[in-house]
Amino acid sequence: MRIAISTGGGDAPGLNAVIRAAVLSALDRGWHVLGIRKGYAGLLGEDDVVPLTRDSVRGIGHLGGTILRTTNRGNPFSYPVKQADGSFVEIDRSDELIENARNLGINALISIGGDGSLKIAHQLWRKGLRVVGVPKTIDNDVSGTVATFGFDTAVTTAMEAIDKLHTTAESHDRVIVMEVMGRHAGFIALHSGLSGAVHVILIPEIPYDIDKVCEAIMARESRGRHFDIVVVAEGAIPKGGTESILGASLPGQDRRIGGIAQRVAVQIQEKTGKECRSMVLGHLQRGGMPTGYDRLLATRFGGAAVEAIDDGKWGHMVALQSPHIVTIPIDEALKEPRRVDPTHDIVRTARRTGISFGD
Amino acid sequence: MRIAISTGGGDAPGLNAVIRAAVLSALDRGWHVLGIRKGYAGLLGEDDVVPLTRDSVRGIGHLGGTILRTTNRGNPFSYPVKQADGSFVEIDRSDELIENARNLGINALISIGGDGSLKIAHQLWRKGLRVVGVPKTIDNDVSGTVATFGFDTAVTTAMEAIDKLHTTAESHDRVIVMEVMGRHAGFIALHSGLSGAVHVILIPEIPYDIDKVCEAIMARESRGRHFDIVVVAEGAIPKGGTESILGASLPGQDRRIGGIAQRVAVQIQEKTGKECRSMVLGHLQRGGMPTGYDRLLATRFGGAAVEAIDDGKWGHMVALQSPHIVTIPIDEALKEPRRVDPTHDIVRTARRTGISFGD
Amino acid sequence: MRIAISTGGGDAPGLNAVIRAAVLSALDRGWHVLGIRKGYAGLLGEDDVVPLTRDSVRGIGHLGGTILRTTNRGNPFSYPVKQADGSFVEIDRSDELIENARNLGINALISIGGDGSLKIAHQLWRKGLRVVGVPKTIDNDVSGTVATFGFDTAVTTAMEAIDKLHTTAESHDRVIVMEVMGRHAGFIALHSGLSGAVHVILIPEIPYDIDKVCEAIMARESRGRHFDIVVVAEGAIPKGGTESILGASLPGQDRRIGGIAQRVAVQIQEKTGKECRSMVLGHLQRGGMPTGYDRLLATRFGGAAVEAIDDGKWGHMVALQSPHIVTIPIDEALKEPRRVDPTHDIVRTARRTGISFGD
Amino acid sequence: MRIAISTGGGDAPGLNAVIRAAVLSALDRGWHVLGIRKGYAGLLGEDDVVPLTRDSVRGIGHLGGTILRTTNRGNPFSYPVKQADGSFVEIDRSDELIENARNLGINALISIGGDGSLKIAHQLWRKGLRVVGVPKTIDNDVSGTVATFGFDTAVTTAMEAIDKLHTTAESHDRVIVMEVMGRHAGFIALHSGLSGAVHVILIPEIPYDIDKVCEAIMARESRGRHFDIVVVAEGAIPKGGTESILGASLPGQDRRIGGIAQRVAVQIQEKTGKECRSMVLGHLQRGGMPTGYDRLLATRFGGAAVEAIDDGKWGHMVALQSPHIVTIPIDEALKEPRRVDPTHDIVRTARRTGISFGD
Repeated sequence: MRIAISTGGGDAPGLNAVIRAAVLSALDRGWHVLGIRKGYAGLLGEDDVVPLTRDSVRGIGHLGGTILRTTNRGNPFSYPVKQADGSFVEIDRSDELIENARNLGINALISIGGDGSLKIAHQLWRKGLRVVGVPKTIDNDVSGTVATFGFDTAVTTAMEAIDKLHTTAESHDRVIVMEVMGRHAGFIALHSGLSGAVHVILIPEIPYDIDKVCEAIMARESRGRHFDIVVVAEGAIPKGGTESILGASLPGQDRRIGGIAQRVAVQIQEKTGKECRSMVLGHLQRGGMPTGYDRLLATRFGGAAVEAIDDGKWGHMVALQSPHIVTIPIDEALKEPRRVDPTHDIVRTARRTGISFGD
Repeated sequence: MRIAISTGGGDAPGLNAVIRAAVLSALDRGWHVLGIRKGYAGLLGEDDVVPLTRDSVRGIGHLGGTILRTTNRGNPFSYPVKQADGSFVEIDRSDELIENARNLGINALISIGGDGSLKIAHQLWRKGLRVVGVPKTIDNDVSGTVATFGFDTAVTTAMEAIDKLHTTAESHDRVIVMEVMGRHAGFIALHSGLSGAVHVILIPEIPYDIDKVCEAIMARESRGRHFDIVVVAEGAIPKGGTESILGASLPGQDRRIGGIAQRVAVQIQEKTGKECRSMVLGHLQRGGMPTGYDRLLATRFGGAAVEAIDDGKWGHMVALQSPHIVTIPIDEALKEPRRVDPTHDIVRTARRTGISFGD
Repeated sequence: MRIAISTGGGDAPGLNAVIRAAVLSALDRGWHVLGIRKGYAGLLGEDDVVPLTRDSVRGIGHLGGTILRTTNRGNPFSYPVKQADGSFVEIDRSDELIENARNLGINALISIGGDGSLKIAHQLWRKGLRVVGVPKTIDNDVSGTVATFGFDTAVTTAMEAIDKLHTTAESHDRVIVMEVMGRHAGFIALHSGLSGAVHVILIPEIPYDIDKVCEAIMARESRGRHFDIVVVAEGAIPKGGTESILGASLPGQDRRIGGIAQRVAVQIQEKTGKECRSMVLGHLQRGGMPTGYDRLLATRFGGAAVEAIDDGKWGHMVALQSPHIVTIPIDEALKEPRRVDPTHDIVRTARRTGISFGD
Repeated sequence: MRIAISTGGGDAPGLNAVIRAAVLSALDRGWHVLGIRKGYAGLLGEDDVVPLTRDSVRGIGHLGGTILRTTNRGNPFSYPVKQADGSFVEIDRSDELIENARNLGINALISIGGDGSLKIAHQLWRKGLRVVGVPKTIDNDVSGTVATFGFDTAVTTAMEAIDKLHTTAESHDRVIVMEVMGRHAGFIALHSGLSGAVHVILIPEIPYDIDKVCEAIMARESRGRHFDIVVVAEGAIPKGGTESILGASLPGQDRRIGGIAQRVAVQIQEKTGKECRSMVLGHLQRGGMPTGYDRLLATRFGGAAVEAIDDGKWGHMVALQSPHIVTIPIDEALKEPRRVDPTHDIVRTARRTGISFGD
């Protein structure tokens, strides 16, 4: 038996722990393991394919990043190919990929990736490649799994930043608006904001009215609380707005960041007269050592992915349905992204503890 | 409406976050809140009862410990009373407690505590006191809830200690045996050990054979790996042993610690000839700032406890059944403690990655 | 004896540890202590003056911020006073301040602050107020002291951010430009950059040539290293530039942040074609719990300030001249700010380990 | 030019940063670098000698441990050699070592180690080997240098442990006695204890009277403070005692740990009747990622050691004399260990803030 592992999409703390657990679990069964570098591109001749041994994965479980590198590019079904005139056209190279995998003797592929990578994994499986998926989304917006690795680390990074901002905001009577990741789902903003005891949380699922935000700030002011921390998801949407400010994202940028935080800060300063500052956490949320929670979850996903191969669960991905890891069909999991339910207990408790959602 | 809050049993990171969320959620409903200090003893005249306001809970969500203090003593159904000759007899003061609560105008009590405190809470409810429970066990051994606050922090503390031991053990070719909490359940050892990539995990649920442990160590030796980290739960039991070394615990000590780690270290040194060291994490696991995960969970528990009062869920406790907080009858939850299932995916993956359980 | 304590200027981790040590050291001598809130303004009727007791400073030594709050405004020698027409004029209220201090029975003032606050302290001493200074600058740019509290925390925050960026930059083959504090002195950039093993460090003391920066990046590229971390101090200056981009700072902003990082990132992307990102650490550097180093240094400063009062060292400030805390005349210490010496061993070692300064 | 690097003695966070900086600084000069594994034993045929390249030291600056491994054994001047009958005799193998170094073409050796390793280094230099030393002592007890790397990390680990113990001790009204490293010097206990705001600090330099310790605890009790944290250095000595409890250390153990903490805890419990617990930090203090301070200092030491070779400073070691790294003769530095001066400002401030030294 020879399996391969690839990682695709944005960085997420825990990728190396998945790889380590999958490699050791496969080797323990007497299998061989190949690492496909740079996502699917690695199977299309763009980078080398490397054997993964015990030595390859020694001591990497607690490290951020991925020893296989990763990329957002290289969908084999619409692969960008440079033309003589310098322009790019996209062609379908999926047959070639499957052929290459066969030539390498790969019996099964573990594809670790976000919805983009997993959709491709599903399509490849339909075309005959035996694939098992491991969901990877720092935004925690995949249905069918209670959590994805990297999310707890991102929330922790955001919460620790909030902890730091608290003292400065309080000492200086300021409003600080901090932008966190979350284009379509506000989980990072919600979890870090509630744990960090902020005063306003703005998320895509609950469109905000800037006047309500300012009301909340002035209500605190009248109670003698002169500072405020506002956490805003990058995909937060003003009420009545048809789409988030993300619609204006620049070509070539994976995430259009910074716009919403500054916009909200300027509006609050204009409307309340209070001194406002904005900041963008950005890449810090994707990096660094995974938390204990993520190291465990990632390790479990890696081990379970190899079990899924052993069980022939092709076209499935691993998922956490506490307290168990299960497998579910990839296409079912991806049907609809998970979003914050505005009636969820976390939102209710946040409101009760005095947090405004600007609605 | 006037509610009271008490904390009982050992310290657990997140207690203050529960208190804060419960107080703010109650005040937001226009209720009054009293804090009972030092567990149930506070309702028996041993300490003051204090009003809890916004100011009382400001800025405490991220702090360890409990502003209400806590204790393992003071079961009102068998309350230790000092006699003239200096000896103690235990008497039932539960009627007095309920009377005192009535005199203070307490309409409902939120009891935050371990199985001991919750059993008492249940008995008090049977006698007429309206009680809602919040489970608190750092060992994560309460049935009916996926997790309890404090557990993630304890696992993180243990894992970070393992991370530190790794470099020293490896640089010096040593075996280090580290003891963590877990008298009846090995969750802390299992989770921290797998996240920390240790080599041996010994837990109460899987009796160990010291010879198997040494075999695992010598097998690593023969692969050129000259150091080992062994994590042992305080309640780990040798195969054939009828009970753990905890049976010999000293009177007056809440936890008999240190015995098992040293015992295992000495045995390994004798049998393998390798240089061994033991250490006991002890109280470090109960203290410190809660992790983001625990701050969120504790906050949710606090908010949900007040909702449960609002819904008249007397005799129930809050519980996490991901992704929701639910309420379940206290007696049902306490019927049987949760223990590590030796067939669980975490154990399977641990074995596959090369960890020995000494069985 | 009755002394007062005030904190002025920007936030710095360790302020509370200074206050705590000074209060306890004074109380231990049988003195009384007053806290002046909001800097010098507190002595001009803008905020209350509060007695500081053991209870006031209990458990604050490890907290960020300052229990006395702080401000950049309120120079008593040119105090902004609102006119009937809404405009402001600045008037000298120093006599009033000294009179108020006398009326409060203040025998001596500990002024904790940056160069602005300390210059005022020195002027007030010249006018008869008995003052002892404690230097506070997160940039570590005060002469006469090896270190100031808050600096080690800021460096640690920056270094931890760099650690996080490393994995993401490497996984994605990116250039990330991170801006840190340092308007006139590049110590934070230099120390965090060298500890964090970045590839380019740009500081005010060594004007940079963007082409040299790009050369360094392309030299790494040619050695197969496809990512780069650039740390830039906010006051970094391009070669031939007469002043830093900070000259363009907006009115009302204490620090013009973000401009230089984005500018450098855009230039590198244009010139090298590599994907670049910029981020600004900003307020995160001022907040949070102080490191052990800063907690100790701040505590020593607080204790030494009270000793200085005991010794009648008026017009002096405390300073670290390892391994001792000494006192030096404030005006001498402020004569010239400390800046990075381009021939210092830290710069030499940074260059030898492959870091480019763009020169 | 070909230089070699060796690490000896106990583990200390920052060793890898020294190695990395030294290797890169040497390669930048066009030199070759060899790594001697396992201390001097590596030059006596016990382990391999490995070439150190850019790849060898990539990404190791922030890791604990040492890629060269280390050991307390193997003094070439009295090298233990096994006899036919199983016993050991010690012989002088220094000539052999120097001969081996010559055969490997080693022009100079950087010896990173504690006083033991440095004394050997000095002797080897006397015999003709060109040596430069880098002091390594986690206890910070080397004269001539303001600080050694690893010390700040150890203090931070101890202080963070104290932070955790605070909440548990306070919640439960307990006395917790924590033992830290420091056989002959109490710097770790003093620095961590003052930063951590403990109540009693016991160090070798200030013999303690257990009755004075108990007085301090009961004085707090009478002020309504029912918990206490006691930090005790492993080498603390009771007044009138001729030597520390360390005199009883077991053969083969590098540090006799745990005795003093338990002894003090038992005595306090007997004399005050308060519930006491003891714990030993042990190996945790040597492991883990170095702090920013230590990463910088270690990097500077590594760079400066290569400069010292360039300057022909044979028989010298690098040292921090803030703000500069200097070189001093090894024998001068080792003449007398650095110890805590009981009149130092840190001790004075500790006393003023209410800390008892038991004297």
